[in-house]
Amino acid sequence: MAKARRKAGSPPGDEAPRPKTSNRKATAAAAADDGTFGLADGRVRAVVDAVLPVIDGGRFAVKSIAGRPFAVTAHCFTDSHDKLRVLLQWQGPDASGAGEVQMQAQPNDVWNGEFTPPTPGRYRYTVVAWVDGFETWRSELTRREDRADITVALEVGSRLIEEAGARASGSDKIILEDWAAQLRGADGEDAARKALALDPARAAIAGRYADRSLATMQSLDLIVDRERAQFSSWYEMFPRSAAAEPKRHGTFRDVEARLPYVAQMGFDVLYFPPIHPIGRVNRKGRNNSLKADPDDVGSPWAIGSAEGGHKAILHELGTLADFRNLVSAAQELGIEIALDIAFQCAPDHPYVSQHPDWFRRRPDGSVQYAENPPKRYQDIYPFDFETRDWRALWNELKSVVAFWIEQGVKILRVDNPHTKSFAFWEWLIGEIKRDHPDVIFLAEAFTRPKVMHRLAKLGFSQSYTYFTWRDSKYDLTQYFTELAHGPGRHYFRPNVWPNTPDILPETLQTGLRAMYAVRLVLAATLAANFGVYGPAFELMESKPREQGSEEYLDSEKYQLRHWALDRPDSLSSLIARMNRIRRENSALKSNESLSFCRLDNDQLIAYVKTDAASGNVILTVVNLDPHAAQSGWVDLDIEELNFPADKPYQVHDLLSDQRYIWRGRRNYVLLDPQRAPAHVFRLRRRVRSEKDFDYYM
Amino acid sequence: MAKARRKAGSPPGDEAPRPKTSNRKATAAAAADDGTFGLADGRVRAVVDAVLPVIDGGRFAVKSIAGRPFAVTAHCFTDSHDKLRVLLQWQGPDASGAGEVQMQAQPNDVWNGEFTPPTPGRYRYTVVAWVDGFETWRSELTRREDRADITVALEVGSRLIEEAGARASGSDKIILEDWAAQLRGADGEDAARKALALDPARAAIAGRYADRSLATMQSLDLIVDRERAQFSSWYEMFPRSAAAEPKRHGTFRDVEARLPYVAQMGFDVLYFPPIHPIGRVNRKGRNNSLKADPDDVGSPWAIGSAEGGHKAILHELGTLADFRNLVSAAQELGIEIALDIAFQCAPDHPYVSQHPDWFRRRPDGSVQYAENPPKRYQDIYPFDFETRDWRALWNELKSVVAFWIEQGVKILRVDNPHTKSFAFWEWLIGEIKRDHPDVIFLAEAFTRPKVMHRLAKLGFSQSYTYFTWRDSKYDLTQYFTELAHGPGRHYFRPNVWPNTPDILPETLQTGLRAMYAVRLVLAATLAANFGVYGPAFELMESKPREQGSEEYLDSEKYQLRHWALDRPDSLSSLIARMNRIRRENSALKSNESLSFCRLDNDQLIAYVKTDAASGNVILTVVNLDPHAAQSGWVDLDIEELNFPADKPYQVHDLLSDQRYIWRGRRNYVLLDPQRAPAHVFRLRRRVRSEKDFDYYM
Repeated sequence: MAKARRKAGSPPGDEAPRPKTSNRKATAAAAADDGTFGLADGRVRAVVDAVLPVIDGGRFAVKSIAGRPFAVTAHCFTDSHDKLRVLLQWQGPDASGAGEVQMQAQPNDVWNGEFTPPTPGRYRYTVVAWVDGFETWRSELTRREDRADITVALEVGSRLIEEAGARASGSDKIILEDWAAQLRGADGEDAARKALALDPARAAIAGRYADRSLATMQSLDLIVDRERAQFSSWYEMFPRSAAAEPKRHGTFRDVEARLPYVAQMGFDVLYFPPIHPIGRVNRKGRNNSLKADPDDVGSPWAIGSAEGGHKAILHELGTLADFRNLVSAAQELGIEIALDIAFQCAPDHPYVSQHPDWFRRRPDGSVQYAENPPKRYQDIYPFDFETRDWRALWNELKSVVAFWIEQGVKILRVDNPHTKSFAFWEWLIGEIKRDHPDVIFLAEAFTRPKVMHRLAKLGFSQSYTYFTWRDSKYDLTQYFTELAHGPGRHYFRPNVWPNTPDILPETLQTGLRAMYAVRLVLAATLAANFGVYGPAFELMESKPREQGSEEYLDSEKYQLRHWALDRPDSLSSLIARMNRIRRENSALKSNESLSFCRLDNDQLIAYVKTDAASGNVILTVVNLDPHAAQSGWVDLDIEELNFPADKPYQVHDLLSDQRYIWRGRRNYVLLDPQRAPAHVFRLRRRVRSEKDFDYYM
Repeated sequence: MAKARRKAGSPPGDEAPRPKTSNRKATAAAAADDGTFGLADGRVRAVVDAVLPVIDGGRFAVKSIAGRPFAVTAHCFTDSHDKLRVLLQWQGPDASGAGEVQMQAQPNDVWNGEFTPPTPGRYRYTVVAWVDGFETWRSELTRREDRADITVALEVGSRLIEEAGARASGSDKIILEDWAAQLRGADGEDAARKALALDPARAAIAGRYADRSLATMQSLDLIVDRERAQFSSWYEMFPRSAAAEPKRHGTFRDVEARLPYVAQMGFDVLYFPPIHPIGRVNRKGRNNSLKADPDDVGSPWAIGSAEGGHKAILHELGTLADFRNLVSAAQELGIEIALDIAFQCAPDHPYVSQHPDWFRRRPDGSVQYAENPPKRYQDIYPFDFETRDWRALWNELKSVVAFWIEQGVKILRVDNPHTKSFAFWEWLIGEIKRDHPDVIFLAEAFTRPKVMHRLAKLGFSQSYTYFTWRDSKYDLTQYFTELAHGPGRHYFRPNVWPNTPDILPETLQTGLRAMYAVRLVLAATLAANFGVYGPAFELMESKPREQGSEEYLDSEKYQLRHWALDRPDSLSSLIARMNRIRRENSALKSNESLSFCRLDNDQLIAYVKTDAASGNVILTVVNLDPHAAQSGWVDLDIEELNFPADKPYQVHDLLSDQRYIWRGRRNYVLLDPQRAPAHVFRLRRRVRSEKDFDYYM
């Protein structure tokens, strides 16, 4: 609401704070139960005690996906025995999307309802509750026994129906007026009089014209994203290493030639580190050395030089036209290009001279470089988010994002968002998504839990996770149970990566193929969003810069690399298979159904995901030990899955295409890492065909 | 805040909703992180992600007790590695009570602080956080190694100290100015220069003059009650049954004569059903019969007659002067008189003719009596809280409460609050407690859980509970664990009753003395607030009106009763002992430490309460079986209690005054209901005296 009132494009200024819940749909409600005591009308008796899900009392919006039902629970009641009616109203970002549904009473003052937001955007939904005189009258009438008492009740009812009729029009009005008159004159048997008064068809009509003048309401915001925010497969690569031949600086055209390779592996997001001019002042050399050789290409994250800044393209990569061509070519293969938003500058970035007040100064007047004493990062100048010129800074950074959106980029991976102002991100993402609700922001914040959660709450669509360092069965189970079922499930969408250019985790430094396969299968099945940094991943690049380091030796962050993509041991075909399995099995497209199975071997981990709508069920079993075969008994909660306890069912390994017949809860598995470190089973029930033979589907 | 702005005494009108958190203390904060995006200043980088405890995102106030420390937890952080400072500010209902304390950083972005509200009233507390340049500088300086780098840092630091000096005055100003000058000129060894710059005494002074201009803040409300809201022992009696001789209508003077009896039992609240004139129209007879005999006294809850209404006294009981005398006499014995607030009218209540629009009408123009078809309660007219004249109705009802407060009554038991408007109660309690913060409201709502919780959230100081019907070990354990440790613990203060005039639970209908003792001990030890309806309780009145009913036969609700208080089997001395134990053992004065013990017998229940401040530990063991002796092994978590595992300790049964020596976790208990159905053990550690002998304390 505050955003809607604010002039588009300008940072927030000195506005009055908005009330938490507001009468956006003023039609129905006399009083917003909005955390204040400023009731417009003390006669409001309905109470909306809670609307769920809710984040921090409504401070932040819940997230959902367009085209999927969004379920709302409300706790509503009133004093005395009177009957309540409860509606769920929703309003999308434009006038076309809006609606209203009845909420259904459950035991214990709980009401349920749902709506399906059709398109991405920011929605507001409102629970509207009122004490319904007509429903109360009906309910009481069913229990009345005394003739005189019924006569009085019929008179009361005919007045209520007349009032409803006065709010109606057309044929409804006529029906209600007739009904009221019939009730008033009814003098037959009590049973017949009550039956007429309780007529459900007429009551339904009267219910449509309820008196909502004393309704109370509570509203919350909802961010609706397109499906890729929840289900995506990322491939990260350095364009400059995409040349077909060694030593040559890769170009966007080389990347274009690489697209079929990426598409074949089944990725739908192709993400590049920054593609902008790289600073020359204090440029880092190979392996992060402080001194660069003249031919060193530098770190893409040291953005900006005399060539240009965040809206420019490093000329070795090509032109803006080349980039746009690449975006289009990728799109034809079902791939979206994602860019890196790294809001920091090399010393020779044009901003440094054009906007000296966007940076902190040292006592000698020089710009303060990044540092974490005793370490200094003299190739990087952070922005000073405490600058008095913050409005201009915010607007300029927003224009950077808007510029790349104009070039067709709708997915942005944000570098270290936790080292920039949180208020800035909340504003930026809100601004961008108001105009472009299909934009997806991934937060690259490998930091403390509460900080990561705040970024997700304030608007990031996806978040990197601790998966990269979670390798034991205990840790994986704890962490993914928390991600799927903890309070963050309404706003924190995990995107899990076995590796990144910054992180070669210890597990992968063994170089064991089985371990790479394990990490791939875990990532691709535990989380609906996952990614790898390639070709380092599929080629099992495993040498750290030094013992105990998570940095790659000869990292692409500081030099060109040439990759032998056709190596016979490449994991590319396993990746392709995993991504096909993900696409074809809706159970893997979300996280909330994740459930771990008991399994009497700590080296084997097993978990189930289901899609209730389609009936798709996937059981993944992974051998975490890359050295030895491991076996055990998987305990599958077949009752929970609605598989009959007494009939066999088929488990179809989508990795090996082998099928097995299982029965009951406990079944044996053996996984030899030399052959296959994991099963990804699709479970199929046995059904009888019309032609009277059994098959599994 | 909204209340403070509103003219005292008038119901809420058409005011603008207030923002959720507001800059009540505007001194420190440039921006309130108040759930809006209307930031005053985008440079604010500190984040207060959560302040705990919180109820419904701050919609309702947490409750605490005057004179007891109130602990606040905040989740605070900022972008990057900069250092944060976090304060807890609080402001009481008047200018005298206010303060500010530093919050202490804990792992994982958690900050802790506490303050002790000195007096009852509505408080507001605020977490204030800012990125502290001086602290950041200090922290970085400790890690700097390079001489040139240190020189620059000293210059930076001296500027920061000068800025602090400019905000200081007096000797602090001089010290800071000197310090800045010393730092700037320092040219000795690096170690000495750093030591001077890091001097903790001077740093503490500089810290007092921090630049808070970019602080963020989050505020919450706190209701502070006097201790009796949390720890009280109630005795309910009908004054009209207090006459020394049978058949005579009791008076306040008779009650005055009864006070020593009540005081001897150790009660500190004496609660009366309504003391007002009782309606004559449709008066109910004995045992709730529809027809009253001419000499039937009627139900005290059918309030109002030609004699007067809610501000009048039934003349048979005495005069207002008698009542005030009684209040004073009780006070001298440490007893407070509590009255019943029952907002409903008998048909002949003066309101009915004076304010016809405060009641609903039937079609024939008669007033709508209470009904729940097919049942009718023609002796009771409920107020219509949907009346257009609601402001006048609310004000009049408030004046009723204010009237009795003027007579010295500070504790009000509210009859069936859940059948009146919730918005009304929130307003009423807020209004009354603003002027009389020492008033205590007990909600008599035996209804669904969410409704009971709402009443507690909106302001009731204490709440009746389901204890009356919880008699198995499983149910008691579940329910009291939820009460002590569930989310309601911050606002729902249980007041538990074994019986009430409306409820003779099945368990007590056996009339078994042991069962009465069991229910007494459970009530008095499980909850800090408890009460009994007497003399029915201590005299073990146990006959229901009919089989399957929870109503008493010959209930005092409809007739006078005469009680033989001196019966030798009376429980009065056991009650007296229980209340003395409660007064003398601080562990029993609150609920949050309650912890149940494992015990291998489902008929025996055992639980511990502790008071960390005094070290008081009470272990209660109850035999729930009134028929047979039961024994078992109590498993006491002595590590948790800080009792040494290898030394004996004493358990002193405060009921029997017997002492036993126990050792280790598991110890044997046997309880014979014929002798004693419970132990209330005070645990004492063995200590060595100065004179070198061991004793238990």
